[in-house]
Amino acid sequence: MHGTRTLEPFAAEEFTKRLRAVGEEGYHDKHPFHLLMHEGKLTKAQLQAWIANRFYYQAIIPKKDATILSKSDDPAFRRAWIHRIIDHDGTKEGEGGIRKWLVLAEAAGMQREDVESFRYVLPGVRFAVDGYLMFVQTHSLMEAVASSLTELFAPKLHTVRLPVFEEHYPWVDKKGLEYFRSRLIQAPRDVEYGLQYVLEHCTTRELQEKAIVALTTKCYILWSLLDSLYFAHISPGWPPPLWPR
Amino acid sequence: MHGTRTLEPFAAEEFTKRLRAVGEEGYHDKHPFHLLMHEGKLTKAQLQAWIANRFYYQAIIPKKDATILSKSDDPAFRRAWIHRIIDHDGTKEGEGGIRKWLVLAEAAGMQREDVESFRYVLPGVRFAVDGYLMFVQTHSLMEAVASSLTELFAPKLHTVRLPVFEEHYPWVDKKGLEYFRSRLIQAPRDVEYGLQYVLEHCTTRELQEKAIVALTTKCYILWSLLDSLYFAHISPGWPPPLWPR
Repeated sequence: MHGTRTLEPFAAEEFTKRLRAVGEEGYHDKHPFHLLMHEGKLTKAQLQAWIANRFYYQAIIPKKDATILSKSDDPAFRRAWIHRIIDHDGTKEGEGGIRKWLVLAEAAGMQREDVESFRYVLPGVRFAVDGYLMFVQTHSLMEAVASSLTELFAPKLHTVRLPVFEEHYPWVDKKGLEYFRSRLIQAPRDVEYGLQYVLEHCTTRELQEKAIVALTTKCYILWSLLDSLYFAHISPGWPPPLWPR
Repeated sequence: MHGTRTLEPFAAEEFTKRLRAVGEEGYHDKHPFHLLMHEGKLTKAQLQAWIANRFYYQAIIPKKDATILSKSDDPAFRRAWIHRIIDHDGTKEGEGGIRKWLVLAEAAGMQREDVESFRYVLPGVRFAVDGYLMFVQTHSLMEAVASSLTELFAPKLHTVRLPVFEEHYPWVDKKGLEYFRSRLIQAPRDVEYGLQYVLEHCTTRELQEKAIVALTTKCYILWSLLDSLYFAHISPGWPPPLWPR
């Protein structure tokens, strides 16, 4: 499209820099909804809306990672990737990241059934998150892995989330913050592997460009989720008609 | 879920009334972006943004209708439905609804290539419209047909669009309005068939409820498209970072 086929691939360092640049500009930690959250300016209802909507994202993560597993021919890759599913689902009832998110929801004063039913998930959030699953289903293994590289930018965010919640939202019961604590350990381990995989498998400029587009698309998904929350719950503050159902 | 399996199906008249009620509350003619458009209050850039983003929707319609065709075992149904694809694609280069929309874009001062490339399509619009295609791919033929029933509510909107454009946006060249003119004839013919199909094939209350959910989902898609336009181009007026690419 841009004649990238004929160009030399970027060296690993330059390619990594370009991947990081996507996050520096487009990762959702810079979204106005996120800024308000971390400044402690969300009302209880707004923070609850974030927790309920973000749960829809949490809930599809294992399906996304199972789709990635299903694309790989390499047992070593699958062994390295499968723990992401286990991290989210746990090894028995009452464990795992999804469960921890529901504990957060309850700690923030919500009914578990209201969150699990996706009742308060905005249509725009559904479309964006479903789009993430569809992206992974319809793209190459490398692109699917590249779309996961938003983890490159997550640890900084998770580090501040714990003190933010403790300071600004003291009405959220402490036991609800376990999810953030566990991600501090899991995400850096995951991203090391994902980044290495993308660096190794992008052997041409064209593949490198595809990786950058995949990561950009993922940033749009996370950003779009917060756009919908901002639009419905902050300004102009218009949830859609016919909702919730 | 609601024990609907045990309930008697609604009579045709009541069922039709309930389908229409979805549009009365949720069809996008009531969206603030649409109200501004029809009051003549959009700037040139805002109207152009609508045309460019709505083109992404226009462009997937034949793919959506081909998916519907592919689900039917009945030649009579396929014969009745196929003309929708032909309406949009035409029978030769330079014809059809998609081409007419590009003529509208040019009449509104845009470069055809900027519109065809989807360069100015907002990520949230992509997710919603892709979600429509995915809905049709992953649901039954009846639900896919029911999701098309937003046509029930379109003719009223198309009727006013012509005078609205002529009065409020005189800078749009008249030759660009052919799309709206053609839909005045096509949509009422289409909807008659689609409504009849849904009435005949929803033989239980459960199926009727599924049809209502399908139509509601479609309303969310159209509504979400305008939410994204409003958020990026009117208020708060924040297009996402990394966009357009």
